[in-house]
Amino acid sequence: MGVNDLKNVLVTGGAGFIGSNLVKELLKRNHKVTVVDNLSTGDLKNLKNLEISFVKGDVLDDGLKLTHLFRGMDEVYHLAANADVRDGWKHPRTDFEQNTLATVKVLEACAESGVPHLVFSSTGSVYGEALEIPTSEKALPPGQTSLYGASKFAAEGFIQAYAEANKLTATILRFVSVLGPNYSHGHVIDFVRKLLRDPTLLEVLGNGAQKKSYMHVSDCVRGVIDVRGTGKCEVFNLGFNGYCEINDSIKWITETLGVSPSLSYSGGDRGWVGDNPFIWLDTAKASQHGWEPKFTIQESIIETTSWLRQNLVSK
Amino acid sequence: MGVNDLKNVLVTGGAGFIGSNLVKELLKRNHKVTVVDNLSTGDLKNLKNLEISFVKGDVLDDGLKLTHLFRGMDEVYHLAANADVRDGWKHPRTDFEQNTLATVKVLEACAESGVPHLVFSSTGSVYGEALEIPTSEKALPPGQTSLYGASKFAAEGFIQAYAEANKLTATILRFVSVLGPNYSHGHVIDFVRKLLRDPTLLEVLGNGAQKKSYMHVSDCVRGVIDVRGTGKCEVFNLGFNGYCEINDSIKWITETLGVSPSLSYSGGDRGWVGDNPFIWLDTAKASQHGWEPKFTIQESIIETTSWLRQNLVSK
Repeated sequence: MGVNDLKNVLVTGGAGFIGSNLVKELLKRNHKVTVVDNLSTGDLKNLKNLEISFVKGDVLDDGLKLTHLFRGMDEVYHLAANADVRDGWKHPRTDFEQNTLATVKVLEACAESGVPHLVFSSTGSVYGEALEIPTSEKALPPGQTSLYGASKFAAEGFIQAYAEANKLTATILRFVSVLGPNYSHGHVIDFVRKLLRDPTLLEVLGNGAQKKSYMHVSDCVRGVIDVRGTGKCEVFNLGFNGYCEINDSIKWITETLGVSPSLSYSGGDRGWVGDNPFIWLDTAKASQHGWEPKFTIQESIIETTSWLRQNLVSK
Repeated sequence: MGVNDLKNVLVTGGAGFIGSNLVKELLKRNHKVTVVDNLSTGDLKNLKNLEISFVKGDVLDDGLKLTHLFRGMDEVYHLAANADVRDGWKHPRTDFEQNTLATVKVLEACAESGVPHLVFSSTGSVYGEALEIPTSEKALPPGQTSLYGASKFAAEGFIQAYAEANKLTATILRFVSVLGPNYSHGHVIDFVRKLLRDPTLLEVLGNGAQKKSYMHVSDCVRGVIDVRGTGKCEVFNLGFNGYCEINDSIKWITETLGVSPSLSYSGGDRGWVGDNPFIWLDTAKASQHGWEPKFTIQESIIETTSWLRQNLVSK
C-alpha cells in the first residue's frame, strides 16, 4: 500500500493537540478517519465540523474493545498519551500506565485485529541527556532522565518486539516539542498565560539558557503521515534542525504580546528534575525520506503566541 | 556503606535459581536476608536450612505491602521475573507484567520506604541482535527482538529515571545465560531432559551453530553482590567473556551423560522467533571493578549437566 492510497485509519488521542491537526491533514488527503479519545486533555472543539467517526473512550479501558475498533484499519496512529513531562513525579504511575501499558494494549489489539502498520508518537526525551548533539537515531541514551522519557522508550521496545515477531510493521517518530494551533501545554503556553495575567513580571524555571528545539504541528503531522522506512520497525527523529534558548523564546513571546516584563529566574541550568538543558535532534534520516520542516523555531513560537493570545483571551 | 559492611537486604525471587544462590552467598557474608517469592517457579527446597526471613508473596500483589517489607533494608535485589525468553508469544502480557510492571512497583516501594540502593537483574537480551560483538554496555540496541528483552529494557529505563530523580541509586546487571546448581530452565535442561528420556535422539532448534554465552551462577552472584559503580545508576554486563556454539554444548552434554544420540535439527540460524544467533557480552567494565568469572563455559555446562542428571533422576 503506497503513501497516496486512500486508507482506513484510526487515531488514538485524535482530539488532542497533535492528534486533531493530524486528523485534519489525513482528511485533506481523503483518508477515512476514526478517532478514539478519552477527552481527558483532548477537546471535541478541536474536531468541530470534521467528517470523522468519533469514539469516546480510553485505550486503557478493556471495555472499549480496541480489537473490534481496529478491525479493518490500514494504519493506527497511536498518539494518546500523557504528554506532561514536567509533572511526572507528582503522579509517578501515570506515565507508565498512559504511555507504556496503553501502548502494549494498542499493540495487542493491532496484532489481534490484523492492523498491518502502527505509527507511534515518541519523543526526543528518550535520549535523556544525550552525549551526541545534534542527536541522531543511532545515539545511545546514557540513561533515562524522566518518567515520561522512560515510559515512551519502554513503549518503543515493545513495538520493536512486536515488529520483530511479524505481528505488524511500525514507524516510531521521536518529536521535539511541538507548537501551533490547538497547542495546550508546555513552556510557551505557561509563559503566555502568566504574561496575560501579569505583563510586568515573568518567572522562568532555570536560568533561561536551556537550549530547546521545537517544530510546527503542520510540519509534524506531515512527517507522521509521510515518513516511512522499509524495515519492520524504523525510528525517525522529527524536529526543526536547530534550537533556541529559552531566553530567545521569551524575547519573541514578549515582542508578539507587546509586553516588557521584568524576568525572575529560579536559577540553575535545569528548570525541574529531568529537565534537559540541551535538546537538538538530528533530522537527517527523515530528510533522506523526503521530509523537511517549513517553519523555523522563531516562526513557530510567534505564530503560537498569537494563536494563544486569541484563544486564551476568548475563553 | 562499603561492600564489606553487614547489611539488611531483601531478595525478590530469592527462592529461584539465581535468587537462592545469591541468598546463600549473602548469608556466607553474614548479611541479614529477607526473601520474597511467590514460588511460581522458585522452590522452598532451594532455601532449605537457611537462616532467612521468608515471605511468600507476589510483588505484583498490592496486598503484599512491599513498602512495609522494604522498610529498613540497605539494599533490595530485585530478581523476581519471568525468565522464559522463548515462550514470550504464548502469553504476550506476561513479560510486561512480571518484568516491567513488577519493577515499577518495586521502585515505588523502594522510594516510599527509603531503600537507598536497588540491584536489578537484567539481561543481555536487551541488546537484541547487537551490531557490535562482543557487546559493551555502550552499544545501542538496534531494536528489541523479544518481549523478554523489551520488558527488561523497559524496566531499566524506569530505574534510571528513579535514580536521576534521586529516589535511590541503582546497579543494573545484564546477564548472559546462567548455569549451575538449582538451574531450572534453558536449553541445557531441555537437552538433558530429552536425553534422559531418549538417549538415542536429540532434537535441536535451529541449525546448532547459534553462538551463545553462559556463566556459572557462583560467578554471577559474586558479581551481583560486588559490582557497584559510583554514579546514580550504572549498568554492567556480567558473563564469561566468550561464547560456544550450541553444537559444542551438545558435545559436552552428551559426553557427560555418556550418550551418543543422533541429532535432528529444525534448521535455520535461529531456534525460535526472537532467538539471537550470536550472544557475547564484553565484560571489561565489570572486570575494571574487580570482578572475574572463575568458570569457563565448558566447565559450567559439564557441571550443570552432572547436577541435572542427579537432580532430575532423583525426582
